[in-house]
Amino acid sequence: MSRRKKLYEGKAKILYEGPEPGTLVQYFKDDATALNGEKKATLEGKGVLNNRISEYIMVQLGHIGIPTHFIRRLNMREQLVRQVEIIPLEVVCRNVAAGSISKRLGIEEGQQLPRAIVEFYYKKDELNDPMVSEDHITSFNWATPQEIDDMMALTLRANDFLSGLFAAVNIRLVDFKLEFGRLYEGDMVRTVLADEISPDSCRLWDMETNEKMDKDRFRRDLGNVTEAYAEVARRLGVMKDMPRSVPDAPDEAAK
Amino acid sequence: MSRRKKLYEGKAKILYEGPEPGTLVQYFKDDATALNGEKKATLEGKGVLNNRISEYIMVQLGHIGIPTHFIRRLNMREQLVRQVEIIPLEVVCRNVAAGSISKRLGIEEGQQLPRAIVEFYYKKDELNDPMVSEDHITSFNWATPQEIDDMMALTLRANDFLSGLFAAVNIRLVDFKLEFGRLYEGDMVRTVLADEISPDSCRLWDMETNEKMDKDRFRRDLGNVTEAYAEVARRLGVMKDMPRSVPDAPDEAAK
Repeated sequence: MSRRKKLYEGKAKILYEGPEPGTLVQYFKDDATALNGEKKATLEGKGVLNNRISEYIMVQLGHIGIPTHFIRRLNMREQLVRQVEIIPLEVVCRNVAAGSISKRLGIEEGQQLPRAIVEFYYKKDELNDPMVSEDHITSFNWATPQEIDDMMALTLRANDFLSGLFAAVNIRLVDFKLEFGRLYEGDMVRTVLADEISPDSCRLWDMETNEKMDKDRFRRDLGNVTEAYAEVARRLGVMKDMPRSVPDAPDEAAK
Repeated sequence: MSRRKKLYEGKAKILYEGPEPGTLVQYFKDDATALNGEKKATLEGKGVLNNRISEYIMVQLGHIGIPTHFIRRLNMREQLVRQVEIIPLEVVCRNVAAGSISKRLGIEEGQQLPRAIVEFYYKKDELNDPMVSEDHITSFNWATPQEIDDMMALTLRANDFLSGLFAAVNIRLVDFKLEFGRLYEGDMVRTVLADEISPDSCRLWDMETNEKMDKDRFRRDLGNVTEAYAEVARRLGVMKDMPRSVPDAPDEAAK
């Protein structure tokens, strides 16, 4: 495993060649960045938490028929995923105004939106991931109209399911970001959910206190970032079988 | 309150005239029936539990933009609801084969269905609530094509949300039954969720043990019916503020 090929290194994850053709290993780092990389830190244990939370959510979404790239968790920081061609869009779904929509449209943070709103952002660090319209997306061939429809429908279904999942543990799903990929199977192409779903990619507020339990704690220097992520994991019940004092998996040492 | 007019008495609920025009009081009885009324029992405390569970679920569905008849809970056994014209259909949504679909289509109970399946049944006790097609529904004017579309879309959204809500507390939402009504507002008509959502109207299985936590415990003489309903309420966290030893609301005595 230590000699395997690194295919891509992002801000919070690394992708390695997988053990079989068509698979990749997705490794969760402890690194956190914000402001498009201007702000950086290492948050010990974040990668382990996000690996678990994302595993749990991807498996649950799979159960309701939302196709994902997830195959199985390999160890504390890695999961095996299907190799997909990433669609260069970030799909954001918002239930409550927060972050950029509050600024751009002058809606007070915390205000319930009239209905769930889906936005597309072009994944391009140099441009600061600009918001784009469906017309942009089809004009520049980032995705087909069918893929846009698929992403919208899957995102709205995921929103309903995850709103329920989090509501049951007293967490408001304010918004979240998804990424999708093309999964080639013979001469078929399917749009599947890729990347991760974790407190790095969601806004999660405690329903009673409105306390933030997500990456905004890092972006806004609120402190106790990993503690908040661990609380999300605890409420979802995903850390039940997780050893507390066992060292990371062997491949960790090889990094 | 004791002199108010009874408008309808069903197997598990009574509807009274509400305090203002356009409202009704929905009273939850302890009576349980199955086999279209052939099998009867009184399950002490069931009405109180269903009142709470249904309140919680209706409120949560309201939060994600699914319109319902629910206004507010009045006391241990009653809730205030909007008066609607009930569409004479039971809308059943199934994720896992159980009950009549297993028998009718020969699918083993417990088998995951290829996707969520929505079925319509005509509400008519004398006919044993027969399953009907969309063509039946529009031919006999039970609902318009638009209303069928609305009911389908709202049911599938509710299914995704409730699947998440229950998954978070380790319960599998196997299937459930919804009823809808027409809410007249000026010259507008809206299709809204009515009736109740409770272990009387859902199949709920513990995710680890597959133990039934719903009305099948009564239908199949499995015992501990209200205990199972109470466990559903406990996991959803809806009994937190519920007094344990307070007598029922005063209007109870007047019954």
